[in-house]
Amino acid sequence: MQFRLVIVEPHYQINIGYMARIAKNFGVNRLWIVNPKCRYNGKNAIKYSKHAHSLVENAKICGSIGEATRGFSVVGTTAIWQKAYSGMSNIYELSDFSKKFGSGKMNKMALVIGRDTTGLTSEEMSGCDAVVYIGASDSYPTLNISHALAILLYALKGNISKAAKEDFGGVYAGSSEIEMLLRLFDKFVESNGNIRKKDMVKRAFRHVVERSGPTKSEIATLLVAFGIKKNRNRKK
Amino acid sequence: MQFRLVIVEPHYQINIGYMARIAKNFGVNRLWIVNPKCRYNGKNAIKYSKHAHSLVENAKICGSIGEATRGFSVVGTTAIWQKAYSGMSNIYELSDFSKKFGSGKMNKMALVIGRDTTGLTSEEMSGCDAVVYIGASDSYPTLNISHALAILLYALKGNISKAAKEDFGGVYAGSSEIEMLLRLFDKFVESNGNIRKKDMVKRAFRHVVERSGPTKSEIATLLVAFGIKKNRNRKK
Repeated sequence: MQFRLVIVEPHYQINIGYMARIAKNFGVNRLWIVNPKCRYNGKNAIKYSKHAHSLVENAKICGSIGEATRGFSVVGTTAIWQKAYSGMSNIYELSDFSKKFGSGKMNKMALVIGRDTTGLTSEEMSGCDAVVYIGASDSYPTLNISHALAILLYALKGNISKAAKEDFGGVYAGSSEIEMLLRLFDKFVESNGNIRKKDMVKRAFRHVVERSGPTKSEIATLLVAFGIKKNRNRKK
Repeated sequence: MQFRLVIVEPHYQINIGYMARIAKNFGVNRLWIVNPKCRYNGKNAIKYSKHAHSLVENAKICGSIGEATRGFSVVGTTAIWQKAYSGMSNIYELSDFSKKFGSGKMNKMALVIGRDTTGLTSEEMSGCDAVVYIGASDSYPTLNISHALAILLYALKGNISKAAKEDFGGVYAGSSEIEMLLRLFDKFVESNGNIRKKDMVKRAFRHVVERSGPTKSEIATLLVAFGIKKNRNRKK
């Protein structure tokens, strides 16, 4: 998926800085800013961007949302979906939206982040191909704009760490490994005269192990535990 | 799920403020803070918490992680999973973790947010029942702590807006509504002598409509569009 991040009329440098940082955290290498209302590359914007200062310094400044999004599917954002909903139908709660359109299902997506003061106008939203909002608490739904962006990027881009994908591929136990442990545990229960309600015990263990989503290493550890018990019984 | 948010030794008021705000955005009504390293309820903490200032004012201050998490399953967090990985097996990328344990699958979860300077120590992580990290860019994986919290709360709690759930339940079109449109479109294509590769056109329309995840209102609108065409044909 080609992805473009478009920020509309930001008023506060701290928000630009934080948005640049979270953008770089999720592999976005450019900010497109429509009519910034503060010095977009000022001292505080740089400060809060931390290691993403180059995104602030090299931001592409545009005169309109249309100019910033040309050739892309335009996904607007709002904290207050009621504002968009009157007369609009293409508005999605973020979890629904990312299920339908996330992880590269949309070819060229421009994510449009509204003002850090008043968001996008109803008119701007009606020009978007879709509008998303985060289903936060009804009593306090308005997130800080950079925190909303963090959630949007996570929901739309997900785990982008190549290292994490490679190194953790072999961490979780498969069902055959889990079954091996459960069979061993069953034998352990069967051979133990002190346990009365054997089936109940087996079932409880199975439920706990399966719900826990165990790692290979945890299963291996437990296999040893019950293996040792078994050997001890054999020696008697 | 009973949920507890535990913040370990925060050094900056701005981070406490922002964490309080995003906590309230996701329906968390209390902060548990272990050994704050700044005036946890100072001016900037209050300022950046916005409408969540009561969480800052009423934070529960504890002397240790153990005290703050007693009786809960302890889920630690880290930006640098390599730090935890040596010798540990119960570390999960957040998307994997939330699939296994999110949305109330864990009974009593204490989410432990490490220092805004150095995170949790390896020793502290080894005392956790699980450790999660966000699979961000390998070239810049370190998120600001409050932005990490935003993503964690979204991933673990999801859409918590009751209003959104109720009002949008009926928004998206079901497969029978979509099929109705596709049948109507097929008839439209069949009755139009100007269209030559009819099957190709039908297939293209089907793919576009299905991939778009249309709303009921969009389908209704399109039904009218092709319905009118049909009526016109009839009049001839």
